[in-house]
Amino acid sequence: MPKTIDVTELVLRDAHQSLMATRMAMEDMIPACADLDQAGYWSVECWGGATFDSCIRFLNEDPWERLRQFRKLLPNTRLQMLLRGQNLLGYRHYEDTVVDRFVEKAAENGMDVFRVFDALNDLRNLRRSIAAVRRTGKHAQGTICYTVSPLHTPGDFVEMAEKLLELGCDSICIKDMAALLKPQPAYDIVKGIKETCGQSVRVHVHVHATTGVTMVSLMKAIEAGADCVDTAISSLSLGPGHNPTESLVEMLEGTPFEARLDKARLIRLKKYFAGIRPRYQEFLSNITGVETEIFDSQIPGGMLSNMESQLKQQGAGDRMEEVLLEVPRVRADAGFPPLVTPSSQIVGTQAVFNVMMGRYKVLTGEFADLMLGYYGETIGQRDRNVVELAAKQTGKHPIDGRPADLLKPEWHELRNAALALPGCNGSDEDVLTFAMFPKVAPKFFTTREQGPKNLGKDPAAAPVAAAAPAKPAMPENGNGNGKGPVRTPVTYDVKLDGKTHKVTVAPVQ
Amino acid sequence: MPKTIDVTELVLRDAHQSLMATRMAMEDMIPACADLDQAGYWSVECWGGATFDSCIRFLNEDPWERLRQFRKLLPNTRLQMLLRGQNLLGYRHYEDTVVDRFVEKAAENGMDVFRVFDALNDLRNLRRSIAAVRRTGKHAQGTICYTVSPLHTPGDFVEMAEKLLELGCDSICIKDMAALLKPQPAYDIVKGIKETCGQSVRVHVHVHATTGVTMVSLMKAIEAGADCVDTAISSLSLGPGHNPTESLVEMLEGTPFEARLDKARLIRLKKYFAGIRPRYQEFLSNITGVETEIFDSQIPGGMLSNMESQLKQQGAGDRMEEVLLEVPRVRADAGFPPLVTPSSQIVGTQAVFNVMMGRYKVLTGEFADLMLGYYGETIGQRDRNVVELAAKQTGKHPIDGRPADLLKPEWHELRNAALALPGCNGSDEDVLTFAMFPKVAPKFFTTREQGPKNLGKDPAAAPVAAAAPAKPAMPENGNGNGKGPVRTPVTYDVKLDGKTHKVTVAPVQ
Repeated sequence: MPKTIDVTELVLRDAHQSLMATRMAMEDMIPACADLDQAGYWSVECWGGATFDSCIRFLNEDPWERLRQFRKLLPNTRLQMLLRGQNLLGYRHYEDTVVDRFVEKAAENGMDVFRVFDALNDLRNLRRSIAAVRRTGKHAQGTICYTVSPLHTPGDFVEMAEKLLELGCDSICIKDMAALLKPQPAYDIVKGIKETCGQSVRVHVHVHATTGVTMVSLMKAIEAGADCVDTAISSLSLGPGHNPTESLVEMLEGTPFEARLDKARLIRLKKYFAGIRPRYQEFLSNITGVETEIFDSQIPGGMLSNMESQLKQQGAGDRMEEVLLEVPRVRADAGFPPLVTPSSQIVGTQAVFNVMMGRYKVLTGEFADLMLGYYGETIGQRDRNVVELAAKQTGKHPIDGRPADLLKPEWHELRNAALALPGCNGSDEDVLTFAMFPKVAPKFFTTREQGPKNLGKDPAAAPVAAAAPAKPAMPENGNGNGKGPVRTPVTYDVKLDGKTHKVTVAPVQ
Repeated sequence: MPKTIDVTELVLRDAHQSLMATRMAMEDMIPACADLDQAGYWSVECWGGATFDSCIRFLNEDPWERLRQFRKLLPNTRLQMLLRGQNLLGYRHYEDTVVDRFVEKAAENGMDVFRVFDALNDLRNLRRSIAAVRRTGKHAQGTICYTVSPLHTPGDFVEMAEKLLELGCDSICIKDMAALLKPQPAYDIVKGIKETCGQSVRVHVHVHATTGVTMVSLMKAIEAGADCVDTAISSLSLGPGHNPTESLVEMLEGTPFEARLDKARLIRLKKYFAGIRPRYQEFLSNITGVETEIFDSQIPGGMLSNMESQLKQQGAGDRMEEVLLEVPRVRADAGFPPLVTPSSQIVGTQAVFNVMMGRYKVLTGEFADLMLGYYGETIGQRDRNVVELAAKQTGKHPIDGRPADLLKPEWHELRNAALALPGCNGSDEDVLTFAMFPKVAPKFFTTREQGPKNLGKDPAAAPVAAAAPAKPAMPENGNGNGKGPVRTPVTYDVKLDGKTHKVTVAPVQ
């Protein structure tokens, strides 16, 4: 009997986050839910920071309502979310009772599996949220952010797994957000966890596809004993996204492993999302192939386009090469944090500042906080000179305790502020929405009544439309970053009444 | 010391054949040759049936001259070609002395490695060309066309390898033209060959990427002892093409294997071809993702688009599903041939005929020949009733001998016919060009003097241009098949002098 390999489907969260700037509307997910629910997935990932943000920022959707709908539409399937530990779905540390409340409410609204990570792999930032998940009786998945540096060894990751299990995690996830996990370390880390922590410890592996090697890494992880792997249905896979679900199933045929998914439903899902994808053409990632330079620069694809856009805004689009060389240096100075939200943005932006204004002439507030320990501990020593600069610039002291210990209880204050907002419905869910996105939530509360917006467009309206997924290269400011797309105006020779005019036009919206 | 894994680079032949309808002009290859020559490849594949055909049909390039140029531009690298055994680069069997002559001339003009295959895996169709290669002292690579059927077992392929070695082949290639080779059979076949034929027998593995599993198959083949694998530089990889070269190099890091290629040169090559690719936008394949349905239908991607186009021409674009079900049936009736040029076209076209006109109401001449044994032997019994029909329709008898034994010496006749053509330069090379493409060569001889045509176009002329490879979905008649693209006209609202007009335009060429 082949061993069953479980699969987490990413199409409702990370896949469209990675490929179409998190813009997929609930309306476009609903028709897929019956097949998703019946295909045999271990879990369906459907909620996380960016989807929550996108719901209230772009789609006028209540993310809690989205969650409740998933619960109804996927009655047989574990719903899974990605939780940024003490940051929840926001970009700062929250005080412990807010963490507790968020986890409770997510569980109450239908969440089953909480994949909890911290960008710095600092366990102190994970402890509270993992404990909160355990109290709800839901599945707490402790997450290791995989990264590559002169300091990180497979042994370090195995040790982190041990500590996560000591915190009571139900499973371990190796999270490779930048497609850096090569086959051999994938094998070594999974093997190490199984040998050190016990064969019965569930190991999940999450990889992106960007570098073209990680399908092989999944195979080696499975050979080493991994229990569950993350994939996305093929029509929303590859590029900066993930490996295709159907290929995973086929890959295992004849091996001692088997993914028991319903192939006919997978093909239906593939076709369905192949039809959805072109509707979001203007948001599609411009990375369509493979990028192995990431192995040297350590810079994930999403971060790259962010930095390009920042440079262009400052009229310095030609200085990208310098920034690419600066990022690993800044990362080293910061003690080799993994590069994942929010550390990727913090390190990337500081690298841009260094190139534009001279190294550490100006520190961003976030980078200063990172250097001073306000995000937590890093594996490596942080550069003393830069720490000093950060202290001088901000007037703050370096800390070495758990950052959230500095926070005072804030629930009542947050609640009062939220309840004062027009359109707030007074629920804890609304308070949490406000707590996490205090700048975006107020407007959302006032527009919520108008109902969801679907930003997808009939592909027939676009110049080149076809059944196959259309992937035109987008202008760099048309992708991600929470910014709307800028349609490039095109100049045509137009013959009108026998006379030729040079006319610059944009497609009719 | 890790074992060195050799790499064959496909970018100059199969990559652009699979991704851009074989249209790349020599002019666009020349600037890459220095890096290709120095990167450390075991060989560079650069010649074959489709490139030869495309040279004279579309590019007004002398394919022999292209070969001589490669020889000069790649002085340190083995040049490799794909040879269709007794078919050479054409679509019929040639008489033995023509085979000898072709191989001699190819070797004389600079070819080093002859990868020789037969669409039916019939060794009798390979014997003569392999012997001819051996006489030139060049590398004869005996090729197994990988396919999946109820009859084919790993043992069959191992047995074929043994027989190819008995013919004096210098190495064995497992050729998976449809991306059907899964990891486990890849491992089993390579292992079987090494164990049965000896560890020192060189095994090369050629896979396409279409199904998303074959990067893993390469890994398993390497673990089983494969010596050399085929890849394409990433900017011309994936989809119906191949796995990316840079990813192969990275994938092996830390394993007991190593591909010693110069990464800096690979990145340069990647960037160079990323710039070339958008120039051929109108020829780009519309398959950009992964297609696992191939595992069930057995129909390779290129064949699929051919059949779609045939159906559309007959106003039956909606009957594709029926054809997809018919192909495996026709293939079974024909004794389970692998589906590769020309058997893929023969089986595919007959399936279209069956759906359009009733099963076997009309047989194509080629399908009748296939059923009657005029292409050689198949692994399975051919259906008796259909064989009878074929005999009745064509007035031919079934044969079971080597098809080429029926051919009379034809060199002098071919030579006289070629020499009578205006523009023929009287060389054996020209005679061979005529022999292989008797319908296309005459026109080519008359236009040759005008020099090569480059069908690539400045991507700035297209509406959406960017540094990243642009892959817009093309209308289905804009891809392959020797047909030009049809640019879809688009209607815009254009404001001109304050007045809005509905204007239909096409981009300026």
